[in-house]
Amino acid sequence: MRTEVTWRWPKSKRVVVCFNLCVEGWSDGVAPGISPMGNPLPAGVLDSTAISWAAYGAKDGVYRIIDELGSQKAKGTFLVNGVIAERQPDAVKAIVEAGHEVAAHSFAMDVIPGLLSEPDERKNIERTTSLLENAGGVRPRGWISPRATSSPLTPRLLAEAGYKWYGDLLDRDLPSVLPYANNTFVGIPLHTDVNDMPFMKYGNPPKLMLEAFEENLEVAVRSKSRAPVMIDVTLHAHIFGRPRGAYFFGKIVARAAKSRDVWIGTREQIAEHVLAHVGGMAEGAPRPRAQLRSVR
Amino acid sequence: MRTEVTWRWPKSKRVVVCFNLCVEGWSDGVAPGISPMGNPLPAGVLDSTAISWAAYGAKDGVYRIIDELGSQKAKGTFLVNGVIAERQPDAVKAIVEAGHEVAAHSFAMDVIPGLLSEPDERKNIERTTSLLENAGGVRPRGWISPRATSSPLTPRLLAEAGYKWYGDLLDRDLPSVLPYANNTFVGIPLHTDVNDMPFMKYGNPPKLMLEAFEENLEVAVRSKSRAPVMIDVTLHAHIFGRPRGAYFFGKIVARAAKSRDVWIGTREQIAEHVLAHVGGMAEGAPRPRAQLRSVR
Amino acid sequence: MRTEVTWRWPKSKRVVVCFNLCVEGWSDGVAPGISPMGNPLPAGVLDSTAISWAAYGAKDGVYRIIDELGSQKAKGTFLVNGVIAERQPDAVKAIVEAGHEVAAHSFAMDVIPGLLSEPDERKNIERTTSLLENAGGVRPRGWISPRATSSPLTPRLLAEAGYKWYGDLLDRDLPSVLPYANNTFVGIPLHTDVNDMPFMKYGNPPKLMLEAFEENLEVAVRSKSRAPVMIDVTLHAHIFGRPRGAYFFGKIVARAAKSRDVWIGTREQIAEHVLAHVGGMAEGAPRPRAQLRSVR
Amino acid sequence: MRTEVTWRWPKSKRVVVCFNLCVEGWSDGVAPGISPMGNPLPAGVLDSTAISWAAYGAKDGVYRIIDELGSQKAKGTFLVNGVIAERQPDAVKAIVEAGHEVAAHSFAMDVIPGLLSEPDERKNIERTTSLLENAGGVRPRGWISPRATSSPLTPRLLAEAGYKWYGDLLDRDLPSVLPYANNTFVGIPLHTDVNDMPFMKYGNPPKLMLEAFEENLEVAVRSKSRAPVMIDVTLHAHIFGRPRGAYFFGKIVARAAKSRDVWIGTREQIAEHVLAHVGGMAEGAPRPRAQLRSVR
Repeated sequence: MRTEVTWRWPKSKRVVVCFNLCVEGWSDGVAPGISPMGNPLPAGVLDSTAISWAAYGAKDGVYRIIDELGSQKAKGTFLVNGVIAERQPDAVKAIVEAGHEVAAHSFAMDVIPGLLSEPDERKNIERTTSLLENAGGVRPRGWISPRATSSPLTPRLLAEAGYKWYGDLLDRDLPSVLPYANNTFVGIPLHTDVNDMPFMKYGNPPKLMLEAFEENLEVAVRSKSRAPVMIDVTLHAHIFGRPRGAYFFGKIVARAAKSRDVWIGTREQIAEHVLAHVGGMAEGAPRPRAQLRSVR
Repeated sequence: MRTEVTWRWPKSKRVVVCFNLCVEGWSDGVAPGISPMGNPLPAGVLDSTAISWAAYGAKDGVYRIIDELGSQKAKGTFLVNGVIAERQPDAVKAIVEAGHEVAAHSFAMDVIPGLLSEPDERKNIERTTSLLENAGGVRPRGWISPRATSSPLTPRLLAEAGYKWYGDLLDRDLPSVLPYANNTFVGIPLHTDVNDMPFMKYGNPPKLMLEAFEENLEVAVRSKSRAPVMIDVTLHAHIFGRPRGAYFFGKIVARAAKSRDVWIGTREQIAEHVLAHVGGMAEGAPRPRAQLRSVR
Repeated sequence: MRTEVTWRWPKSKRVVVCFNLCVEGWSDGVAPGISPMGNPLPAGVLDSTAISWAAYGAKDGVYRIIDELGSQKAKGTFLVNGVIAERQPDAVKAIVEAGHEVAAHSFAMDVIPGLLSEPDERKNIERTTSLLENAGGVRPRGWISPRATSSPLTPRLLAEAGYKWYGDLLDRDLPSVLPYANNTFVGIPLHTDVNDMPFMKYGNPPKLMLEAFEENLEVAVRSKSRAPVMIDVTLHAHIFGRPRGAYFFGKIVARAAKSRDVWIGTREQIAEHVLAHVGGMAEGAPRPRAQLRSVR
Repeated sequence: MRTEVTWRWPKSKRVVVCFNLCVEGWSDGVAPGISPMGNPLPAGVLDSTAISWAAYGAKDGVYRIIDELGSQKAKGTFLVNGVIAERQPDAVKAIVEAGHEVAAHSFAMDVIPGLLSEPDERKNIERTTSLLENAGGVRPRGWISPRATSSPLTPRLLAEAGYKWYGDLLDRDLPSVLPYANNTFVGIPLHTDVNDMPFMKYGNPPKLMLEAFEENLEVAVRSKSRAPVMIDVTLHAHIFGRPRGAYFFGKIVARAAKSRDVWIGTREQIAEHVLAHVGGMAEGAPRPRAQLRSVR
């Protein structure tokens, strides 16, 4: 028997919609592993096309995304690599000035915490945090690793570095307080169902992201369950920061903004809400009845 | 000349719909080979993201699937790895308590009978069977290997271990008695056409699984042939146990439940029916005329 | 300046629709490189699931395809591996008895002419030809290699072995006489646009094959060009020989059968027509004005 | 703060549509890395099927594309490999005679500037330029590398060889003058959103390319921004030069031709316009306010 979770998001909403906007960079001499090209390149060769394609994000894409959020006065969480702060600090400033959260996304997409030694992971956290703080004037309070690929140490190291939330979790529906930093550190799962990546992986037309969002919202609203729901909408500035993708993203933002059931929240706001009103259901931690969904 | 099969499923139905619900786990330190991520990981690195993503199944996904089946009072066959019984025995108990069949799915997704020596395969069958029986209180009577990848010995070893059916067959339309255990062992083919895997492999939106089901049902009902039909609907708790997938699965269950042409059966019930009323058409076994479809 | 081709197919039709039905097998101990499974197998391991999946074609799939063609009295070209004649001669007999063309498709899908030495290629042609003739009672007169992968010698060796056409060509719109066997050997290009393979490669729903056919037919009928058109419809007995695929194939056959613009022809009939009425436009051969399309 | 770009395309249009038509060839003994086949070939084997498939482009496909453009009196930029000029000079002549731009696309698809030494890259530019000039009678003034994969030297070497534009850029929305050849060399980004490659990579039906175009046009026309927009439509003669693809391409050309908001321009015309009326916004170059889009 599992008992249904009955807490609510701020403003007593049952549904939070969280916009995750990735502004990504790769280290010098490293290319993204994906690109729009069809003709394959011999193995081991640097893909300058993929580098140019990805560079669009911090040059033009990020501003189009800021525009789309701004036209609905919606706030989002921008996941920014440290290298972007180094190369295009203006992009970080523009995000902060528009009132959005800047969360850390490692130094670069090729610096993956899951592959680092503990000292290197500490240094990566320090360096990324400083770069983002210096560029944007605000210290990031949240972290999602590239491709959400943590090491087992990541949450502890982030908590020690003063972070309030991290998001390398795909195993639960809802966030919860994790047993770090005296239970003041929140794990926020990342839901990948509404995402621009299927455009790159499967050629899905951008309007399918809108459909995915609308279906998720319909499922949440129609659900017989009274549990709170979290819907993530994830975009990459170099993918759907381009005209067609951003257009359908804009429709999602507008749809969320006008829904009576939806609270639009940043991950930082989610973390604060969970700390103040919800509590923990982390693996190994005691699981309050109130957070369990009933099995009929 | 082939003569048409004319037997019927229980309740004189021409169509059986069988729900196969996979609750999967991987051995410690092994990650699934697929995940929702777009950015590739260097070869040989442990994909902690894929591990977290897959862990959703036995934590949240399985309960959502049980709910969807329960809301239509439909029974399904859950394919459960032994490692799930070890890690989350509550999930196995919940399946059994809701009245569903628990079938064995090897110890873990990375323990594939087709790759094991005979002694290791025997041990794997013993261990998996015990774990599932201990967790759920019921000894599994059926087996499908991870990715349906048997060794040539698998059916014989399963029959010797007291199993009544196995499902690593993709080469026929209909089940039949196989020549093991004095002809009391049934081979039930696995039809992959209605499945959540195309969401992971090709980015197909979840509603395409509903369309696939509706089309299969329409094809079955409209067919001029009078032969019985078997429609498999296969779901993974870590894939379509999430909100949107489960929603469309719920629509499939409801559609099957209200169709006059459909008997909803577990694989165990199918095996019992075949043993009692149909007989064998296995490779090499004599092929009764009644089971052959005519060629016009 | 290119002059438009103005010849017509039999019955003065502008469009031929050719049904290519592949009944495929692999050598003992060799598995197909594709299957419906999602979880990957370690490299170098024999994929028994893919073997079982592919075996469906000659067991159940081929009969469903014969039924669909038969219900419209349409004739097709079955591409059959020699190993099928060895293992399931009944399937070959059933094809011949239903009045279809049996064309050779090499001994097995893993015996690819493009990879064979000349003596091995000769032996492969002899063996495959004999097996199919022995099983079906009719000597095949046409050949398409597995995945249409010829060696440079293939057309000459086939012409010497008495074949009348081969189809390992994807570089032209229309067939033509090739300079072998005193200009009595026809090259018939294979058009891959209406095909069940996108179901396996991209998860395209079966009805997209119907749409692809309807669009190709519409394009052909609406074209301002007066040139003859060839539309290939290619199916694999282990892929769309299953219920849903065969259902949409049946709709294609019915659509072709009722179109006033369409002549349904086998490749053998196409070859005969080209030999009698058209002539050659092969690479290097003189190109008759009548076969060239004008450039406006 | 970024200030909105307010310049216009010729005829005071806000939107340019540019048709990029690739007529591609591979060196002798080299096969394309993609083909329509489903059954994989062993690694390291020459794929004669892919060679035959790709050869369609310069034999039949290019003429169908010329027809579709011609029926709307639209001009496009043909990206042609030098090897095509060697093998099928008639194709190059036909392009030029129909009034289109011939741009250089390297000697062959497997000769990728990003992988060449400086001397080899110089030779490749010379050889390709001469071949195209000899075949078509017009010296190419623009260059896009195979898969847009430049070396860091490519723009400088092209400028020195007298080229006026190059297009291996995917990082910006709009073209700009680059700091080569006394600021007379234009970088024109390549937008990949309207493209036939998703047909090969993802099995997207050809009509999705039409939808992609219509959506891009709608996005451009509806945009609140007053900035100029560039829409690329990219086709390969061996892919959508076939009947169904060309049919939907024809619908795109017709749609663009009748839109009041659209100027149809070749890349050469775009370069001339940018040189005459716009100026530079290249990386490192001073960025005129007029070219910056405002951030609201």
